[in-house]
Amino acid sequence: MSSVNLDPVLNELDNQLDNSIERLFELLRIKSISTDPAFKGDCRKAAEWLVEDLKSIGFDASVRDTAGHPMVVAHHEGPNDDAPHALFYGHYDVQPVDPLNLWENDPFDPAVKDLGNGRKVLTGRGTSDDKGQLMTFVEACRAYKKIHGKLPVKVTLLFEGEEESGSPSLKPFLEANKDELKADFALVCDTSMWDADTPAICVGLRGLVGEEITIKAADRDLHSGFFGGAAANPILVLSKILADIHDETGRITIPGFYDGVEETPEQIKQSWDSLGRTAENFLGPIGLSIPSGEKGRSVLELTWARPTAEINGITGGYTGEGFKTVIAAEASVKISFRLVHKQDPDKIRAAFHKFVEERVPADCRVEFTPHGGSPAIQLSYDSPIVTKAKNALSDEWKNPAVLIAMGGSIPIVGDFDTFLGMESLLVGFGLEDDRIHSPNEKYELTSFHKGQRSWARILNALAQK
Amino acid sequence: MSSVNLDPVLNELDNQLDNSIERLFELLRIKSISTDPAFKGDCRKAAEWLVEDLKSIGFDASVRDTAGHPMVVAHHEGPNDDAPHALFYGHYDVQPVDPLNLWENDPFDPAVKDLGNGRKVLTGRGTSDDKGQLMTFVEACRAYKKIHGKLPVKVTLLFEGEEESGSPSLKPFLEANKDELKADFALVCDTSMWDADTPAICVGLRGLVGEEITIKAADRDLHSGFFGGAAANPILVLSKILADIHDETGRITIPGFYDGVEETPEQIKQSWDSLGRTAENFLGPIGLSIPSGEKGRSVLELTWARPTAEINGITGGYTGEGFKTVIAAEASVKISFRLVHKQDPDKIRAAFHKFVEERVPADCRVEFTPHGGSPAIQLSYDSPIVTKAKNALSDEWKNPAVLIAMGGSIPIVGDFDTFLGMESLLVGFGLEDDRIHSPNEKYELTSFHKGQRSWARILNALAQK
Repeated sequence: MSSVNLDPVLNELDNQLDNSIERLFELLRIKSISTDPAFKGDCRKAAEWLVEDLKSIGFDASVRDTAGHPMVVAHHEGPNDDAPHALFYGHYDVQPVDPLNLWENDPFDPAVKDLGNGRKVLTGRGTSDDKGQLMTFVEACRAYKKIHGKLPVKVTLLFEGEEESGSPSLKPFLEANKDELKADFALVCDTSMWDADTPAICVGLRGLVGEEITIKAADRDLHSGFFGGAAANPILVLSKILADIHDETGRITIPGFYDGVEETPEQIKQSWDSLGRTAENFLGPIGLSIPSGEKGRSVLELTWARPTAEINGITGGYTGEGFKTVIAAEASVKISFRLVHKQDPDKIRAAFHKFVEERVPADCRVEFTPHGGSPAIQLSYDSPIVTKAKNALSDEWKNPAVLIAMGGSIPIVGDFDTFLGMESLLVGFGLEDDRIHSPNEKYELTSFHKGQRSWARILNALAQK
Repeated sequence: MSSVNLDPVLNELDNQLDNSIERLFELLRIKSISTDPAFKGDCRKAAEWLVEDLKSIGFDASVRDTAGHPMVVAHHEGPNDDAPHALFYGHYDVQPVDPLNLWENDPFDPAVKDLGNGRKVLTGRGTSDDKGQLMTFVEACRAYKKIHGKLPVKVTLLFEGEEESGSPSLKPFLEANKDELKADFALVCDTSMWDADTPAICVGLRGLVGEEITIKAADRDLHSGFFGGAAANPILVLSKILADIHDETGRITIPGFYDGVEETPEQIKQSWDSLGRTAENFLGPIGLSIPSGEKGRSVLELTWARPTAEINGITGGYTGEGFKTVIAAEASVKISFRLVHKQDPDKIRAAFHKFVEERVPADCRVEFTPHGGSPAIQLSYDSPIVTKAKNALSDEWKNPAVLIAMGGSIPIVGDFDTFLGMESLLVGFGLEDDRIHSPNEKYELTSFHKGQRSWARILNALAQK
């Protein structure tokens, strides 16, 4: 078939690995933290860096302004007019890096770290989520173009800069640029392998509703000696609300929360059970042992196919060194709900507001700040692009690719369906221990290298009839 | 009797008011925040300033080292060997000043602010708690000495620098310096008036147990997409514990917590009821209206004679701008219990530890950090010094002094009883709206001025047989 075309491309990727690492490190050094306004300029810098790199490969690339951080859009023609058209998506923004003191190396000074036993990792914020992943695709295109002077399919690239902050500009951008971005299918590289040896295609993704609540009580901080026992304490009010969210079986008590949640089919649950994931081997590596969610369900089901309510941050009163006998004027919490199947983000948000409002004392107030929302996604198990990608991945990794679900949200997948009528193929090379969103994020050098080779194989396979 | 002696002293205080303000401002400008190690040097500076000032009056004054911040001790002989010996106590340390952005003026750049209607206040951290109060006594001594060349009673001064951080060095210091500090009675100036026109003597004080809890779950911060629904969330664990502390009637559920709590005698409750304090006029000025503690009790009873559990600060996970879908490795809370009557601080602390430990999931851990503890105090309603002070205060303010209780702790009063066998007289000139422990702390100029005059009258009265 196409091994005549493919082998020199794979060889080129092998030969250029060191250069591809150096290019990735340039991108990683840019502090493109999208959630913190202080790094606005860095986000633009990352977009501009990508445009320059893509132009050097022959893409028609540009930085495109939005109300928030800019998009990168780039186009490359196919070998002929009949060639399929793929839209590849990744994001150049990264998570905040605090607590900084827990990082072993500067998060923005990436390095290759040799862990022994022939295992090397790339360290730094964004190595795995998602700069390292998106560059696997760019490198595959670079090598293909260099060897053959063309790409096997028509390619459009869309790199977002707000994925870690709820993608507020994405929907308007897709709507406004529908004709330009519409392709035959989307390729998304922001997911993980099953394990270090087993490639995976993700067909299920949880959605997300993010919300910040601030409880306001007295109009000033109070001395707990003078007022304690009589004045409402907003931290206590907040604690009571948070404690009410789950019942003793781990089920979420917000009325209507489970509307649209489906039981996972038995055969799917069985295939997941056969993967050998246990509470011990899932939670053990992070120092835990007991599943904390709904009782009577496997950890894969809990993280792939059940909704959750998680408290992501809380603050109120005196939190410095020592002690201060104060009753705070306010306290706030950041909370997120992971959604599955057909749960409606807007309805969940409204139900949660009502749930909170019913629990706020009459003389206190609550303020809500929304932080993004997206429904869950369930993709096909057996479309042609899934089958082609599965074979290509199995060839590269010498191990059959598995079809999995994921606990995290990738809102773009739903948006591609809604706005552009496109199916998505989710292939990524992260590992669960990559510490994305945490200190000491890393990406396996093998993921970066064989990820590039995997995309070369997938592009080649997608070009076939 | 002694008006011959007293009037010129009162006149001197009137004439020297501006100078006394300038002296107080010098002391207020020293950032003696005892809870924050960054201000260690400033605490010593405040102690040294006091020693210099007391020497200028003729006290034998010295800075005395402790394991923490130093004490100031100063002695002045009486007019003769038969004169009573008073030990006066105050503290030169102040509360932290965050949130700084809520202060209308620099907390360490004190000023006289004219509020109109002839009302002036002194603004800045420590004006009311406790630098302004302790200087009322120093100024009374200064004027008495200047006019008469002597003081009416033998006076020992003890100024502490750790009152706001639980007084860890106080007990060892009292024990080690028992012979030097033992007097006939103690005078303590760290309390409030009933209202701006009504002086008060405080005969009841709540005790305090302070405790910090840290819940530790996973050994790192986690991505809530990967692990949400399966990994324990320490903020949620903490919320459940905090929500359990009170039942729906506002009663504290920790087993044994109410051991030693007595019902307040009916006649005392009636005298408090006659003071006209209502939920509206107590909570209204701070923007609240509904008493939050035990149901069916008056706000005076709730804050003077009932124990409480207050959450003073909480922190965990991502608390910066924007959002981070993280499950934190740990979360912590600062909590304090106000104690009354015969509640035992050590037993309360132990019972709380047990209460928390029973609620921590098997694969999480809890760490406790104690922050001070002291029992409540109940003083006599009719001892000779109470009667003398009551008359002196009534003379100065042209309004009968009332006997009240207080919600806050002044551990020294119990320690004076335990270690030195002394009764204490608690007289202070703060007002409830002084915003002590909060931004924009102030002290009424009238409190500062008539407070000085009140102490001159009390010293004079205490000298009488």
